[in-house]
Amino acid sequence: MSSAARATFLIASPDAPGLVARLASFFSELGLNIIDASNHTEVFTESGGPRFFMRLVVDLSRLESPQAVQGLGGSSSRKSLTDAFAKLAGSLQAEWSVAFSDRVARVAILVTKEPVCLYDLLLRQQSGELPCEIPLIIGNHTALESVAENFRVPFFTLPVTPDTKPAQEAAVLDLLRRHHIDLVVLARYMQVLTDDFLKQAPPVINIHHGFLPAFQGAKPYHQAYARGVKIIGATAHYATKDLDQGPIIEQDVARVSHAMGPEELVRVGRDVERVVLARAVRAHLERRVVVEGRRTIIL
Amino acid sequence: MSSAARATFLIASPDAPGLVARLASFFSELGLNIIDASNHTEVFTESGGPRFFMRLVVDLSRLESPQAVQGLGGSSSRKSLTDAFAKLAGSLQAEWSVAFSDRVARVAILVTKEPVCLYDLLLRQQSGELPCEIPLIIGNHTALESVAENFRVPFFTLPVTPDTKPAQEAAVLDLLRRHHIDLVVLARYMQVLTDDFLKQAPPVINIHHGFLPAFQGAKPYHQAYARGVKIIGATAHYATKDLDQGPIIEQDVARVSHAMGPEELVRVGRDVERVVLARAVRAHLERRVVVEGRRTIIL
Amino acid sequence: MSSAARATFLIASPDAPGLVARLASFFSELGLNIIDASNHTEVFTESGGPRFFMRLVVDLSRLESPQAVQGLGGSSSRKSLTDAFAKLAGSLQAEWSVAFSDRVARVAILVTKEPVCLYDLLLRQQSGELPCEIPLIIGNHTALESVAENFRVPFFTLPVTPDTKPAQEAAVLDLLRRHHIDLVVLARYMQVLTDDFLKQAPPVINIHHGFLPAFQGAKPYHQAYARGVKIIGATAHYATKDLDQGPIIEQDVARVSHAMGPEELVRVGRDVERVVLARAVRAHLERRVVVEGRRTIIL
Amino acid sequence: MSSAARATFLIASPDAPGLVARLASFFSELGLNIIDASNHTEVFTESGGPRFFMRLVVDLSRLESPQAVQGLGGSSSRKSLTDAFAKLAGSLQAEWSVAFSDRVARVAILVTKEPVCLYDLLLRQQSGELPCEIPLIIGNHTALESVAENFRVPFFTLPVTPDTKPAQEAAVLDLLRRHHIDLVVLARYMQVLTDDFLKQAPPVINIHHGFLPAFQGAKPYHQAYARGVKIIGATAHYATKDLDQGPIIEQDVARVSHAMGPEELVRVGRDVERVVLARAVRAHLERRVVVEGRRTIIL
Repeated sequence: MSSAARATFLIASPDAPGLVARLASFFSELGLNIIDASNHTEVFTESGGPRFFMRLVVDLSRLESPQAVQGLGGSSSRKSLTDAFAKLAGSLQAEWSVAFSDRVARVAILVTKEPVCLYDLLLRQQSGELPCEIPLIIGNHTALESVAENFRVPFFTLPVTPDTKPAQEAAVLDLLRRHHIDLVVLARYMQVLTDDFLKQAPPVINIHHGFLPAFQGAKPYHQAYARGVKIIGATAHYATKDLDQGPIIEQDVARVSHAMGPEELVRVGRDVERVVLARAVRAHLERRVVVEGRRTIIL
Repeated sequence: MSSAARATFLIASPDAPGLVARLASFFSELGLNIIDASNHTEVFTESGGPRFFMRLVVDLSRLESPQAVQGLGGSSSRKSLTDAFAKLAGSLQAEWSVAFSDRVARVAILVTKEPVCLYDLLLRQQSGELPCEIPLIIGNHTALESVAENFRVPFFTLPVTPDTKPAQEAAVLDLLRRHHIDLVVLARYMQVLTDDFLKQAPPVINIHHGFLPAFQGAKPYHQAYARGVKIIGATAHYATKDLDQGPIIEQDVARVSHAMGPEELVRVGRDVERVVLARAVRAHLERRVVVEGRRTIIL
Repeated sequence: MSSAARATFLIASPDAPGLVARLASFFSELGLNIIDASNHTEVFTESGGPRFFMRLVVDLSRLESPQAVQGLGGSSSRKSLTDAFAKLAGSLQAEWSVAFSDRVARVAILVTKEPVCLYDLLLRQQSGELPCEIPLIIGNHTALESVAENFRVPFFTLPVTPDTKPAQEAAVLDLLRRHHIDLVVLARYMQVLTDDFLKQAPPVINIHHGFLPAFQGAKPYHQAYARGVKIIGATAHYATKDLDQGPIIEQDVARVSHAMGPEELVRVGRDVERVVLARAVRAHLERRVVVEGRRTIIL
Repeated sequence: MSSAARATFLIASPDAPGLVARLASFFSELGLNIIDASNHTEVFTESGGPRFFMRLVVDLSRLESPQAVQGLGGSSSRKSLTDAFAKLAGSLQAEWSVAFSDRVARVAILVTKEPVCLYDLLLRQQSGELPCEIPLIIGNHTALESVAENFRVPFFTLPVTPDTKPAQEAAVLDLLRRHHIDLVVLARYMQVLTDDFLKQAPPVINIHHGFLPAFQGAKPYHQAYARGVKIIGATAHYATKDLDQGPIIEQDVARVSHAMGPEELVRVGRDVERVVLARAVRAHLERRVVVEGRRTIIL
């Protein structure tokens, strides 16, 4: 039974009058109830004119009603729904995507040695806070294998050196494909991914343990200490070929004092990192994030 | 020229399928562009079933276009627009209101002796941050008359004692009416308003210098000190007959330590109070606030 | 070799001139280096006059130097040091305690079914962030036994009903004694402890998932939702016979919106709870907390 | 009568055993009560070895007691006290300063056109929150002259162009000297001060409307918008010849969303700026700030 199934549509298009009405009417004319809707118009965009963004969560329980069947031209299915929506989107020059709530996203976690973010993601998934499965953990060290075991998640160790990087990344990509991974989360994975890898992989979310754009690169807490800042932060962003330059999804901060050495900044920062990473992963999984140039819109 | 004029509609109704589409289509069929739209469905309400809330900001620049004229039955005016919307709202059993951007809200500020919130509101109004006029300040003391003078705002002193309270409140109400006041802001006005006053007055926003519902009543910072809390706060809410029980519009907090005495809590708290009050007033003036029982929805 | 051993002294006394000098000189005359010192004078106290609080961390590596031996009357040991300090403290009418860094505190965790705080404490202990051992976890349900197993900590299930409460608490006390427990942490232990238990147990830290003193008692997030607050919080405090009335050690908050139902407040609140609890436990273990009436001083 | 007078000593020296005791004993042997004391040892410093920092607030009401007179060699005065302290400090190779509470600091404010920080400082000074006098406001525009008039503070307009900069800075310095200014606060003064000016001026505190070290230079809110950050901030620091590189005294942040354009970031940021600036000025005036390389210690 599909009574609880929902479809979440994410749309980005040039702005125009009547967009909310046209998109909402598309579903209401099919008798499908919009459960949640939010939209935003970005006035200044890198691509020029104003752009319109909308997220629509649609209850599919009446997809087989006569009204929907008729509106979709005689047969109602998810495919006929998305085909019809594609036509509308085409007429609006819109980019769009759709996700179905009963098709749970599959997330791979990449780690090195630091356990906190890994535990955090596993616990949140377990408690139902993150709407996803985690069928795969990959480490470039063996350090966290026992954590994966405790949660009964397959763990693959793929060590990497400068020489073996191409082969290792190919092996990672192969695992991602075999496991039908939709999203990769770097939970303190201490390796820079190549542009080549990123082009072939599903979306990749990284947690940077600094308040970007300050303190890019290595050892951000040590940089923060040396500069004497009074607040530190963490930044979750999509990984792009430019290190620590990808679109920011979420950030948060914590107050620190001169009395805290670099080690203590690390400790305080860990609590920020994992919360920021979890919020970003959750927003992505709920299809709330649209990338627009170097910015993200969170709907 | 009315090109910049906007109408902001606030709607609250029982939830039903197709509401977003029906409301949005109403405007798009008239050729009026929706600039900003947000909605929320409250699943559990005091009144029983789920309720739907929507805020729609509509550009009126094409109100005199043939499409609008035809859609509104031959003559297009703000009145014909609101009449037509009233019919739609009636069919949805909706409560609603509309405000026009070129009809600036008129705000009265009530004060006693504490200058910080008063200065803050006046400066924000002056800088364009608060979309309103402030034609009237009323004090039950003369202490802040010179502040009003600096900003060239009429100041009326209406002292109050337990015996003269009814007469004083009548005088305040008379001033509010004569000045066509739309909103009253209590900027640390150290008097409890009677239920009778509140029934006759426009909406009243109060700032309570404590983190409600903790520390109701007098001297909240002293209460907070005695209880040894590590965080203090301030709460802006609509005034109701039950002291400090009205619907909360905005809250914020600041961290404090054992080393701060009650006086220092007052000092730290002042910075929170004025920001919280200004945010609440701004949200009200932008027609973002809907009251639903003891809660507020901020759209 | 005891080169790294440190002693942390916590002192509370009536205020008097020269206290910092007298306390600091006591150690410097023995040739012992003060690594960290902080003090606070509380002007208004429940007990009347001003009180003085000081925390002193002393490096013991030179405890066997001739200077220390001579100053302590011919033989230097931890006992002779604390005996000498006791004399000084007596002359100041001071309450005091001392802890040695190489005598690691032993912490028991009490749980019911909620895993987040338990995982959090175990992980922080594992990473060295909490200077303690965790030799014992007690649950009134079996739900979290596997978590304890993963971390190889003995887990005892002691179910409780109103009828068996006295016997269960006696069994808990017995386990605490057998395991030489110095501190009990209630990590979402869903039972009220009796006054009788608290009198016999070591100090007990509880996490209340609300911003005390608002929202005492059960289901604080549901209370917060009903009241429409814009910020929720969590409070770590010492358990006392008056439920949720004990001295507050740490609090923190998170911003919420009308769009979040009670379930979502629970989710957001969990991230606050565990951080607040961990900070409180850490402060206690580092001997930074002094209770003064209903307040705490964090040195 | 000097009964309320206090002296605040700030000391920075190479770390050594017994420093707290030696410094505290200096005062207690004179019978002078230490009201407030805090200290910090910085393990890693730019200058090499560990450094010790201490702030001592001493009650001078017993400066003329026989004990003090004897201890200071027969005559007790502030000068004999500071001479004696200078000897002790010399033996510790300490840098130090002293300030007397009845010798109120004189602060000059430099402004351009933005009124918020100026009002804020004037109001805080008026309410007693900032322990200083403000005898002088200098603007490179006339825009804020009326604000100064409202508070009855002398206002000097000294316009500046690239050509006239040396002459204008000389005129500013002349005014600072004539008014015996102890501290200069740049309250959104939109001019870069030359190294030459800074060498001759008293300490200068600047507010940067960005979260340093991110977003240095001009238009930080526009930079923040373009980068899509989710949190903005403000930074108060001592001005040095390297723009926006001086030691940070205080920072704070505010959460923003994609929906806020650059103008709205400016508005939100203003509330952060003024609070951060006021806290930094207050910390400086209370002699809590020690500069150590690029960092500050706040005692």
